[in-house]
Amino acid sequence: MRARLLEATVELLVERGFAGTSTTLVSERAGVSRGAQLHHFPTKNDLVVAAVEHLTERRGAELSAAFAALSAQPVDSAAGRRTRLRTVVEMLGDHFASPVFAAALELWVAARTDEALLAAVGPLEQRVGREAHRLTVAALGVDESRRGTRELVQATLDLVRGLGLASTITDDSARRRRILREWADVLDRQLDEERP
Amino acid sequence: MRARLLEATVELLVERGFAGTSTTLVSERAGVSRGAQLHHFPTKNDLVVAAVEHLTERRGAELSAAFAALSAQPVDSAAGRRTRLRTVVEMLGDHFASPVFAAALELWVAARTDEALLAAVGPLEQRVGREAHRLTVAALGVDESRRGTRELVQATLDLVRGLGLASTITDDSARRRRILREWADVLDRQLDEERP
Repeated sequence: MRARLLEATVELLVERGFAGTSTTLVSERAGVSRGAQLHHFPTKNDLVVAAVEHLTERRGAELSAAFAALSAQPVDSAAGRRTRLRTVVEMLGDHFASPVFAAALELWVAARTDEALLAAVGPLEQRVGREAHRLTVAALGVDESRRGTRELVQATLDLVRGLGLASTITDDSARRRRILREWADVLDRQLDEERP
Repeated sequence: MRARLLEATVELLVERGFAGTSTTLVSERAGVSRGAQLHHFPTKNDLVVAAVEHLTERRGAELSAAFAALSAQPVDSAAGRRTRLRTVVEMLGDHFASPVFAAALELWVAARTDEALLAAVGPLEQRVGREAHRLTVAALGVDESRRGTRELVQATLDLVRGLGLASTITDDSARRRRILREWADVLDRQLDEERP
């Protein structure tokens, strides 16, 4: 029942935005009584934060599994490494252009002008950001103790966030792919140069 | 009077978000009668789109003037060119972390789930995007006919958009500066390699 409520909440955030999402609409869509819903989540803020957290974790686990499957295949040439990098960066781009990103965006933007919501969203955002960073470092197979590498990983995540934001207004997946392919190749040359 | 209305609207978008901005609050803050306001802007959507457009154009002109002042100083060494690149990228980062960005973000996110608003915001966003691209190409002094250059300019703009989004939740200007300095240096090496 908890999962049904959380998924209905994310669907509504995606379809109607934060302002258009009400606890009444959520209980209707989830087919859960108002009483049961209030028992789990006393306020709208409780519900939307838990929903975005739940879906972000599930999607993060999916990305993590996909990266692990990729890492299981050995890479033994420069061309193979370049292909791997392109794949990892493209997967990140797709991840940040998903409906769950749109739901998270609704929450971030609402939190900007709502102190109570910000108090819950701030720590969630930090945790999610650290986890995305950790996953990306592992998938790229880079050594963060090298000068500049940490910043390039962060730049990659900020880039896909920017592209995700653009994709909420227009479908620009072809543009995104071109940019990310070029970015992956720059990253490849850059990380190569910085190797011993 | 028109300018007062538009500036009050952007202030309210920044302080209270899209949902918290009403035409009544705008006319109060601008000190303009309801009748006069309705004459200029019959609906809330008319008002918010015109406000973001107005402020984006003014801020774009400021950035353009700052870039022009920069371009007036000749660059005659590799070190000078690197410094120029760092400055341009840092100026872009600051531009996308401004309150006007927060107001534009409110509009984009509201437009995602409001068809009438999207019909007005979509073309505005395209125009603003093209203008930012043109300015950046000129300020960086790069040749877009070279393979990959166009994508790197776009990536730079999507990166600062992603950093701008992050800055609406937390003040991460120190992190932003580190990332953008590293990215400027990568761009410098990259554009250098691609020169004849």
